[in-house]
Amino acid sequence: MRFVSYEYNEGVKIGAVIDNGIIDLSDAGPSLKAILATGPLDNLIKVAEQRSPTVDLDHVVLHQVVPDTGRIICVGKNYKDHAKEMGGEVPANPNLFMRTAQSVVGHQQSVIMPTASDQYDFEGELAVVMGRGGRHIPVDKALEYVAGYSCFLDGSVRDYQKHSFTAGKNFDSSGACGPWLVPAREIPDPQALQLTTRVNGEVMQHASTADMIFSVAVVISYISEFTHLEPGDVLATGTPAGVGAGRTPPLWLKPGDQIDVEIENVGTLSNSVKAEAEV
Amino acid sequence: MRFVSYEYNEGVKIGAVIDNGIIDLSDAGPSLKAILATGPLDNLIKVAEQRSPTVDLDHVVLHQVVPDTGRIICVGKNYKDHAKEMGGEVPANPNLFMRTAQSVVGHQQSVIMPTASDQYDFEGELAVVMGRGGRHIPVDKALEYVAGYSCFLDGSVRDYQKHSFTAGKNFDSSGACGPWLVPAREIPDPQALQLTTRVNGEVMQHASTADMIFSVAVVISYISEFTHLEPGDVLATGTPAGVGAGRTPPLWLKPGDQIDVEIENVGTLSNSVKAEAEV
Repeated sequence: MRFVSYEYNEGVKIGAVIDNGIIDLSDAGPSLKAILATGPLDNLIKVAEQRSPTVDLDHVVLHQVVPDTGRIICVGKNYKDHAKEMGGEVPANPNLFMRTAQSVVGHQQSVIMPTASDQYDFEGELAVVMGRGGRHIPVDKALEYVAGYSCFLDGSVRDYQKHSFTAGKNFDSSGACGPWLVPAREIPDPQALQLTTRVNGEVMQHASTADMIFSVAVVISYISEFTHLEPGDVLATGTPAGVGAGRTPPLWLKPGDQIDVEIENVGTLSNSVKAEAEV
Repeated sequence: MRFVSYEYNEGVKIGAVIDNGIIDLSDAGPSLKAILATGPLDNLIKVAEQRSPTVDLDHVVLHQVVPDTGRIICVGKNYKDHAKEMGGEVPANPNLFMRTAQSVVGHQQSVIMPTASDQYDFEGELAVVMGRGGRHIPVDKALEYVAGYSCFLDGSVRDYQKHSFTAGKNFDSSGACGPWLVPAREIPDPQALQLTTRVNGEVMQHASTADMIFSVAVVISYISEFTHLEPGDVLATGTPAGVGAGRTPPLWLKPGDQIDVEIENVGTLSNSVKAEAEV
């Protein structure tokens, strides 16, 4: 079962994808975040299993998985080889930054190369959507708080990132999350997934999530030391080596480029690059 | 005229403070952010001027000025003497980080000293609430986009801040914004205000906003290079020297401490410290 935030004629609704069709679940709640706040995703799965698709997947616009998320908390330098290619040290604690939902689009929506910079770069990542809320979550219970997983494009503007992560990671519509939410029960081990990022079909990043320095469970537990994680919070778990900035010469994205972030058992998030001036 | 987000029996509403009473403005919109999205604050001022207070200020709970803000964007090291006391360089560009609304409370609400650390510190700052939205805002027009000003307590957990700004600045209820919004038309020059932070009545920080490295207008223009600023976005403009971490020995906040952030022509934000375990 895959859950989507989709738009078809009348605003963004919640649905489930079966084969190439979408099951309307908008009567279950106004958003995935709102539904997660009411209880486990299992309830929504049961509802979806009793229904049939009513619209073709090709006929809708997919939005980011949690369009109304309150927080997107991201882990920097969470793969050793990426920390090295960026010239930094391997962090002793999770190195967090935040993106706002305004910086993120959905599957097959255009990501925007800004006019302010020519150093627009890709980072493919595993995204985690929180289901249950909690504070001071122990590592060995942390995965019980996960609603599911998705793919994340942590689009980064490298010259601004040198000013601050906040600037470099928050250009409007520079990142993406999708195509859908895969329930956690279908991904028993989030540290055993192959992750591949392609630009124009060419493999740029290829690694296993086993290579994360801080596992999904450790990241959740760490964040919950300082804040009560809430249903619908999104975590982006860091990127492996192979980004454009780590190449000689650097490979920057340009209008028309096609980026695919594929994660085993999760799906493929696809976005094409458009220049800000074209929007 | 001072606008507040206040709670009195039935949820958080918008009001204006006159003398020691509150004028109910809840029919103007569900929140200050929603009202700002519909047009200039001048409209709300006109409505308020025709009404009388209906409840005593002492009888309500004041919430943070924009409880439903989508973004709180903060400037690190924006006063030279503070950059020096923190052992860092004076930044060449605004050094931004973000807080979420979950980390912020209102005037006279308790701020929370976490169990995870004993390095809880204060930073008094001028807060800016955006009125008009915009992207690529020129510096010489930037102040036209401001709805008004408030005081900000950028409560910081210093050991976690060494891991990342995101962690150190986002402990739940560790900061505050208030007591109210003072319309921009009453503050013609935000770079000519005396700012004083007191802990238990003793002056800890005292400076003029003239000492900012990046003025309010420059910060707005810079942020709008990467994102469309939205009505209700909150900017915290950095703190002068005198924080607890810059003292020998360091001065960490403890339960029962009283913090006041006073800004000339804006007001005084007061909060007392409570331990997380007491909540």
